[in-house]
Amino acid sequence: VLNLLRTLRKDNTGYDLKQLFIGAEGTLGVITAAALKLFPKPAERATAFVAVSDVRQATALLARLQEHTNGLLNAFELLARAGLDLVLTHIPGAKDPFTAPAPWYVLCEASGIKGVAAAFQAGLESALEDGIASDVVIAASEGQRASLWRLRETMSEAQKLEGPSLKHDISVPVSAAADFIDTAIAAVAARLPSARPVPFGHLGDGNLHFNFQMAPGANPESYLGHWDEVQQLVHDIVHEFGGSFSAEHGVGVMKRAALKRYKSAAEIDLMHVLKHALDPKTILNPGKLVPD
Amino acid sequence: VLNLLRTLRKDNTGYDLKQLFIGAEGTLGVITAAALKLFPKPAERATAFVAVSDVRQATALLARLQEHTNGLLNAFELLARAGLDLVLTHIPGAKDPFTAPAPWYVLCEASGIKGVAAAFQAGLESALEDGIASDVVIAASEGQRASLWRLRETMSEAQKLEGPSLKHDISVPVSAAADFIDTAIAAVAARLPSARPVPFGHLGDGNLHFNFQMAPGANPESYLGHWDEVQQLVHDIVHEFGGSFSAEHGVGVMKRAALKRYKSAAEIDLMHVLKHALDPKTILNPGKLVPD
Repeated sequence: VLNLLRTLRKDNTGYDLKQLFIGAEGTLGVITAAALKLFPKPAERATAFVAVSDVRQATALLARLQEHTNGLLNAFELLARAGLDLVLTHIPGAKDPFTAPAPWYVLCEASGIKGVAAAFQAGLESALEDGIASDVVIAASEGQRASLWRLRETMSEAQKLEGPSLKHDISVPVSAAADFIDTAIAAVAARLPSARPVPFGHLGDGNLHFNFQMAPGANPESYLGHWDEVQQLVHDIVHEFGGSFSAEHGVGVMKRAALKRYKSAAEIDLMHVLKHALDPKTILNPGKLVPD
Repeated sequence: VLNLLRTLRKDNTGYDLKQLFIGAEGTLGVITAAALKLFPKPAERATAFVAVSDVRQATALLARLQEHTNGLLNAFELLARAGLDLVLTHIPGAKDPFTAPAPWYVLCEASGIKGVAAAFQAGLESALEDGIASDVVIAASEGQRASLWRLRETMSEAQKLEGPSLKHDISVPVSAAADFIDTAIAAVAARLPSARPVPFGHLGDGNLHFNFQMAPGANPESYLGHWDEVQQLVHDIVHEFGGSFSAEHGVGVMKRAALKRYKSAAEIDLMHVLKHALDPKTILNPGKLVPD
């Protein structure tokens, strides 16, 4: 039993053992407790839904707002128009914040010290003036904020109600996101022209749920039969852009083959060395994460 | 050769190998490159030198300023009056910012979004009103800011010019800092009454350079002969308060015995397992960090 619950901001006494277990999916040990750090409640919060013409504009908007708020953005979520359409179709009460459609949207939020809302708004105004954003709605109440967030938070549910999807949980450097999306959508379109791209997610982190929806009326079994082929196509492009084939959801059983394909031999060797050193009898979550 | 230079904010694909090498003092491998993340330049910065009656007030001031600035403090440095006296004595041009002496001081700074300077000042005013701070100087120019920082940055040099010190590079949870300082100063006074406590450092991180200066005219060799005995006394108290015997400077050769004394057997076992797994021939920085 290792007690690593120290609550110090600075400690340089030996190997940082705690980090070894975070993200190891229980293959090196079992985490039974955690110490949490609490922060003061933000004094202000501001939320906006922004229409942009393409993903390049969305990343330019991210830089503009980070500059204006000095890094106090706490959400920057990308939505494709095709995804918003699914939400408007399947989620009761969902409403388009704008009268005319746009190709892409960003739901963004800043919070912190008093004055952050004004700085956020000034950033949005300058983005409109410079043609980075084409339209902006700022939430004027908690109710409006909840309505805007609902468009993003019901996205997975709306996609499920529409039908099956080929899914990817990927990340790329933020600066490469626009090029990645263009390249990967074109590649999937060439392989499987009927697949409908509906990417969404945490563009501020470079992390996208890069999903492709089945065409209406197509055969689900035959569509999902393309899973491995499309996933490898997308992951190969992610890899070319210096990205990750699993940004949030780990490796488990499903992505062990991907780990073997994209990690270097040196990294896989070191994973084996660590697994063997800490779990020589292979009793900790066997068959997961570490390639055979 | 492991290439771990990915610049992703989210990546959940296997063990976080990079963390294994950070802080390992070259005993598991040699770091040859790093990727840095850049941030926008702060729009504003404000710096103050604050007189407080004791360390409890200093930690109360920290909480008050974190609350007012919503966590945008970037420096919170503690100085004892005895330390300021050494700077005023030994550093040419150093000037006491106040007319009357106080037992303790804090040099603090906030930076970030426009408005942070006003929030910082409002926090200082409320601390004065509530008796948390007894006097405050806010830098009105870059020149004044440089003068205030010089009082802190020349502290090590002033202590060296005064004579030899028994030194400790420790950290404790911030909430325990005041009790730790009281307890440890009393314990050292009981063991070595002539030693003059001159603690200073990064109180915002719970990290103190907990130094004891030799009395004027005493014998340096005999004073420094107390090094191991006083260090163990102080480190035992640090350990009781859940702290670290090496906050910044690592273990190296000098603190290998401390590592053996304060780490649990399970932690030391795991360090041995990792060292043996990654460096079976013990060729990487031998004799450092890892206990025999």
